[in-house]
Amino acid sequence: MFSFSLIATDGAARRGVLTTPHGDVQTPCFMPVGTRGAVKALTHRDLEEVGAEIILGNTYHLHLRPGDELIARAGGLHAFIGWPRPMLTDSGGYQVFSLAGMRRVTEDGVEFRSHLDGARHVLTPESATDIQARLGSDIAMVLDELVGAEVGQSPFRERAARRKGDCPPSDGGLAMERTARWAARARARIQRLRADPQSVPEVTITNPGQAQFGIVQGGTNPSLRTASVQRTTEIGFDGYAIGGLSVGEPVDVMYDIVAHTAPLLPESQPRYLMGTGMPDDLVECVARGVDMFDCVLPTRNARNGQLLTRTGVIAIKNAQYAEDRTPPDAECGCPTCRRFSRAYLRHLYVAGEMTAATLLTAHNLYFYLDLMAKIREAIVFGTFEKLRSEFHRTFSRRPQQSR
Amino acid sequence: MFSFSLIATDGAARRGVLTTPHGDVQTPCFMPVGTRGAVKALTHRDLEEVGAEIILGNTYHLHLRPGDELIARAGGLHAFIGWPRPMLTDSGGYQVFSLAGMRRVTEDGVEFRSHLDGARHVLTPESATDIQARLGSDIAMVLDELVGAEVGQSPFRERAARRKGDCPPSDGGLAMERTARWAARARARIQRLRADPQSVPEVTITNPGQAQFGIVQGGTNPSLRTASVQRTTEIGFDGYAIGGLSVGEPVDVMYDIVAHTAPLLPESQPRYLMGTGMPDDLVECVARGVDMFDCVLPTRNARNGQLLTRTGVIAIKNAQYAEDRTPPDAECGCPTCRRFSRAYLRHLYVAGEMTAATLLTAHNLYFYLDLMAKIREAIVFGTFEKLRSEFHRTFSRRPQQSR
Repeated sequence: MFSFSLIATDGAARRGVLTTPHGDVQTPCFMPVGTRGAVKALTHRDLEEVGAEIILGNTYHLHLRPGDELIARAGGLHAFIGWPRPMLTDSGGYQVFSLAGMRRVTEDGVEFRSHLDGARHVLTPESATDIQARLGSDIAMVLDELVGAEVGQSPFRERAARRKGDCPPSDGGLAMERTARWAARARARIQRLRADPQSVPEVTITNPGQAQFGIVQGGTNPSLRTASVQRTTEIGFDGYAIGGLSVGEPVDVMYDIVAHTAPLLPESQPRYLMGTGMPDDLVECVARGVDMFDCVLPTRNARNGQLLTRTGVIAIKNAQYAEDRTPPDAECGCPTCRRFSRAYLRHLYVAGEMTAATLLTAHNLYFYLDLMAKIREAIVFGTFEKLRSEFHRTFSRRPQQSR
Repeated sequence: MFSFSLIATDGAARRGVLTTPHGDVQTPCFMPVGTRGAVKALTHRDLEEVGAEIILGNTYHLHLRPGDELIARAGGLHAFIGWPRPMLTDSGGYQVFSLAGMRRVTEDGVEFRSHLDGARHVLTPESATDIQARLGSDIAMVLDELVGAEVGQSPFRERAARRKGDCPPSDGGLAMERTARWAARARARIQRLRADPQSVPEVTITNPGQAQFGIVQGGTNPSLRTASVQRTTEIGFDGYAIGGLSVGEPVDVMYDIVAHTAPLLPESQPRYLMGTGMPDDLVECVARGVDMFDCVLPTRNARNGQLLTRTGVIAIKNAQYAEDRTPPDAECGCPTCRRFSRAYLRHLYVAGEMTAATLLTAHNLYFYLDLMAKIREAIVFGTFEKLRSEFHRTFSRRPQQSR
């Protein structure tokens, strides 16, 4: 029920198809983040209109509210939120490290306090597997250990976190090892759920065809990355993610680690770069062999008035757009650009209207998804390098100062 | 370019068509309020999908930001906001009385301080006409004087307002007289704009076919209402509104005033009951001869989690809906009900997701617009009284305590 086929390659760039229990996904693909069961400010119909084939749900949020067991009783996440297409869930680990209070990591798992009500929770490789089994996403992620530095903490804060009670390991190597041990436990758990569901009646499996991806860690250390690939692939997953990047490291370092790591992963399985990135990052990491991406940037930036154009980012609230009757991007075919001017969007944004968030988000997501569509086509036609150089010639991630 | 035709009547209920420079509107009609150029939490595509033919814009807000002159330079409000269909604007008077600081009413007009930045502004019958000429709505309203009581102030606050500096009149009769004098000035102004636009070059007329409606005041005093009708119709407008109701008076009093006033208005022109109401109010006032309604209730209530159903209002955040897999209303054909459950909507609402506001607003508006469609059909088929009694048999405006 879950498979991946390579259709074409162009250099290290790959064009493929994910087959999931809820439909196919063309790769390389970008997955909008539907945090709590909706992409912020969008309806599913908006998502379909801008071309989203697969979305991501955050296990941490859904576990806390409304709860994975409630969602399982509703038939799983697809049924609960009314999204019949493919979905991926993360393990919950990232938000535990970035949102929750009082985190304590042990070999068993991570204890934390809910940011909603302070209640104590424990997340283990097994329970993260169970939660995602109840949610019934098409792709579930293993629980990995994020080192302090990997959620954007400075080394000073990392040491402070250790003093607070996080148990070692908290350095890259030991974290990589723990992630590998946790991955083995998650794999064992899902294999038991698949083989003998009656033995775990407390876990309602709403999507028996769910796939499980392992996560390669190792920070910015190529040797650790190599070791992590080895440790993860020897367990054997349905796909592999590269985690622990886009957490504050310089962009060229990130590109180098992806270039190092992606080719080490099995060619016949999908490769997912978590939490990345800006449009130029997508191009550069496709060039290095990545198949799947997720990121909050297009949606979060939209809500903050940062609009993507062919040449880069514009800040819609700038006074220069007050009477700009052109669309956000002159070449964009999205619903927002077909109908609305920068002036109107600026007005709505400055006025604090929710409609601004919807229209800007739809545009930014369309930009990402349209870029992925162009990338897919270019790989098939052997013109990916041409797209890549043309893209860098025109797009700059630095905010535009003038039109 | 603006006209009204009666198609059918059923008792005092009327079925008609407004013809405007931007298209037709079937009446009786309900106009969603697009305050600052968008209906809160909806895109225009959402509006079209739920069946909105005409929306209302608030002149006060648009005058302050982004400004009617900027909008005129963009070609008018239709062009600026990308809504090609009919639009009505109010005069700005209501928000001046309800939102602005430091209001001072004189015979000339009303001085106020912007709620945005405290800047001093003056709104007169002439300037309200000019502003709406720049906005270019299809129907403009005259500036009327709202008595303190008419914006929901208690008599005590009204006296306090008078001490603050509002100049008399502030009692119903004198306010009605002033409204009549202001109406005559507004009519004279629009006639000059129509006849001799070059003589007022500072006013860009973006919609030469714009109609102007007069407003009948008189509070809850039938004699004053009769006098106001006389004073307003003798000036002669393209349509007539009944203002100053749904401001806190008992519902049956409102119905009685409408029953008294509507038949006094010219039969061949549209009758617009401003700021009303709940679904049962729409039915009752159609029964009394009203053609047009606007109200923030369906949209505001949606954002507050109050959902309309055939039997009445439900508060979606109630725990009883946490696992309710039924749609908001089992008989509703709106996009929200076709796809989503009460449980999911409750989850999104409790989680504070903007998507909740969109989905709930779309549903509540569809409920209103679908009710109007059913009313129109019933009038044509002579079954309006049947619809009316059936409606009251099933719908109760009191919040539902159980399913």
